[in-house]
Amino acid sequence: MAPMISVSEATSIFKEKLLIKSIKIAHSVFADRDYPPFNRVMMDGIAISYQDYEEGHREFSIAGIQPAGVEALGPISSNQCIEVMTGAPLPKGADLVIPYEDLKISEKSAQIINETSRSKMEHVHLQGSDCKAGDKVLNAGTNLNGPHTGIATSMGMLPELTESSRILVISTGDELVEVHEKPLEYQIRRSNVHAIKNSLELNGFTDVSINHLKDDKELVAAHFIHATKLFDVLIYSGGVSKGKFDFLPSVWSEQGVIKYFHEVAQRPGKPLWFGKDELNQTTVIGLPGNPISSLICLHRYFIPTRLMYALLEDEITFSKPLTYFLPSTFSYKTDGTLWAKPLKIKNSGEFTALANSDGFLELPAEMNHFPKGHAFPFWPWKGL
Amino acid sequence: MAPMISVSEATSIFKEKLLIKSIKIAHSVFADRDYPPFNRVMMDGIAISYQDYEEGHREFSIAGIQPAGVEALGPISSNQCIEVMTGAPLPKGADLVIPYEDLKISEKSAQIINETSRSKMEHVHLQGSDCKAGDKVLNAGTNLNGPHTGIATSMGMLPELTESSRILVISTGDELVEVHEKPLEYQIRRSNVHAIKNSLELNGFTDVSINHLKDDKELVAAHFIHATKLFDVLIYSGGVSKGKFDFLPSVWSEQGVIKYFHEVAQRPGKPLWFGKDELNQTTVIGLPGNPISSLICLHRYFIPTRLMYALLEDEITFSKPLTYFLPSTFSYKTDGTLWAKPLKIKNSGEFTALANSDGFLELPAEMNHFPKGHAFPFWPWKGL
Repeated sequence: MAPMISVSEATSIFKEKLLIKSIKIAHSVFADRDYPPFNRVMMDGIAISYQDYEEGHREFSIAGIQPAGVEALGPISSNQCIEVMTGAPLPKGADLVIPYEDLKISEKSAQIINETSRSKMEHVHLQGSDCKAGDKVLNAGTNLNGPHTGIATSMGMLPELTESSRILVISTGDELVEVHEKPLEYQIRRSNVHAIKNSLELNGFTDVSINHLKDDKELVAAHFIHATKLFDVLIYSGGVSKGKFDFLPSVWSEQGVIKYFHEVAQRPGKPLWFGKDELNQTTVIGLPGNPISSLICLHRYFIPTRLMYALLEDEITFSKPLTYFLPSTFSYKTDGTLWAKPLKIKNSGEFTALANSDGFLELPAEMNHFPKGHAFPFWPWKGL
Repeated sequence: MAPMISVSEATSIFKEKLLIKSIKIAHSVFADRDYPPFNRVMMDGIAISYQDYEEGHREFSIAGIQPAGVEALGPISSNQCIEVMTGAPLPKGADLVIPYEDLKISEKSAQIINETSRSKMEHVHLQGSDCKAGDKVLNAGTNLNGPHTGIATSMGMLPELTESSRILVISTGDELVEVHEKPLEYQIRRSNVHAIKNSLELNGFTDVSINHLKDDKELVAAHFIHATKLFDVLIYSGGVSKGKFDFLPSVWSEQGVIKYFHEVAQRPGKPLWFGKDELNQTTVIGLPGNPISSLICLHRYFIPTRLMYALLEDEITFSKPLTYFLPSTFSYKTDGTLWAKPLKIKNSGEFTALANSDGFLELPAEMNHFPKGHAFPFWPWKGL
């Protein structure tokens, strides 16, 4: 028997070989002009000449009102002011804004009633101070958020996204019946493909289909030949253990799929299989059939996420030389720490317990005893 | 002038008065039968009688193979075994599973070659050990994730989601042109509504429309009367400051909208307005027109998220008696702490800087000096 590879080896192989695209910002965005595009007023009030102010003038006749969206008024003469609104262009000849709270305003004039130190261009966003025309303002390949959309649209483009990998999630196993069917006592419903599809969709993959195949080697082979031409990624659920009916690895091998690895020194999820059909450049992933194992393998290796670290709330002992994935809740504490509380489950058959988890801790194979208060990687079901 | 309310007062009022629904699991889910529904084999190997084993028998004749999805075979006789596959029902009469790794298997018999202590029902998931028929396994009102979908579908139902609030995001301001238009020097594109819509959609609101209105009081009033019948929430962007052209609050007041508050002691985002049209039970929100302010107000008060706390990476001084929202990046450290690094921006006009932020810190009004290493609330652009 070939020795199992470690979790860190499996991680490296995935990193090197996995071809997978969630939706991201497709193109970098460059500023179409300076931002702000003009000297922009930051406060409601009046605009005056700084020189007037320096020379001691405190009362100004109102020569007009400058709203946003209107070409800059002016030029103003000495001892004149223009009432200005937030977002408006600074009137010509003005280089100081005095906010209303420092003013006494009558119909025709404005008087500064609050003496404080003022500087040239105070309360003015200078043209180009945010960015200059031609500056790169958004990087291709990042996850889109609200601010990105605001920046892109302010520069005249709706942000374009990359296409998601076309993913097919396939269950095998004659013990499985459809979700709407009533299973016989010894049957179960095929829920894994739905869980996998939903996890993928919640994490940036928008093109996910599902399928079910009977435990028939020829049928599975024929389906594979067809599917490898239509999809970028085939994710199989079940059929990769060492049982008598786990024939998927031999089908893939007969179809010329390159095997990167089979079996990882981890619990749960040991039977994980990873390879590639070189002809069609299709990624082939075999997830264990156990619902907890399949979701843990999917999130640990396949779904890109920001790596989190959480402090262990309970002491854990696990003596096997395997990386131990432990479904847990997590919580942010007011002191800036993140804590993970392992679920009290006895084995990977307790699937419904997962409803109350936020993800899982990764406890390294090199340790047997995991003390309370030590930090370990945490993988969330829904990443940031 | 009425005194501004504090951020914590604004938070309480939103909590009490805001009617807003993102998509959640609509109905609790109850187990349709025991899980596992039968005594389920956990390892590939053989199933035998524990009594045989206790009496010292170590070699067993193979009476059959028990795959998953087939009714339990048996009953087995003394000194017989049945080969069992992971996920299969335990054959009748058997109450111990010995995994292949402890066996030497020939064509007709299996011999236990590895002596270790074994217990009754070892490597068997007992019927009902995960949950019993009738147990509640999913709570209505929680955010859906992959495991939830797996659990619901394994019990025969695709998870149903609640309907999202119908939200209309409205920009006003004659200085704004459409995204595809080329603005004149003193004009800008109407990007806020797109940013707000995208932030809402990335955080569980699926029914978000946008609209733009000219700065015409009668037009805005007529639109309001129509929109309040069609939408649950109206979010206005701009027009709520104290400028000469900020007439939205007076329109709402004339239309009988109850004002809960206007102006919050915060920077940015002071002009925030919140009220409700009692007749149609429509929530009315006026966000400041500044792009950074509008997104911060939206995320701070409106978008439900798990509250995070992050340690400040840089010392900050802010002396005004206002809550200070500071766009920042964040990172999880290997020691289980979360750190936030404030962006180096001078004022809320530097919108493009936001591209590199993950959200914003909330620094309380009661403090002026915020030392490095102290923890404060953090609001992410995309919540967990």
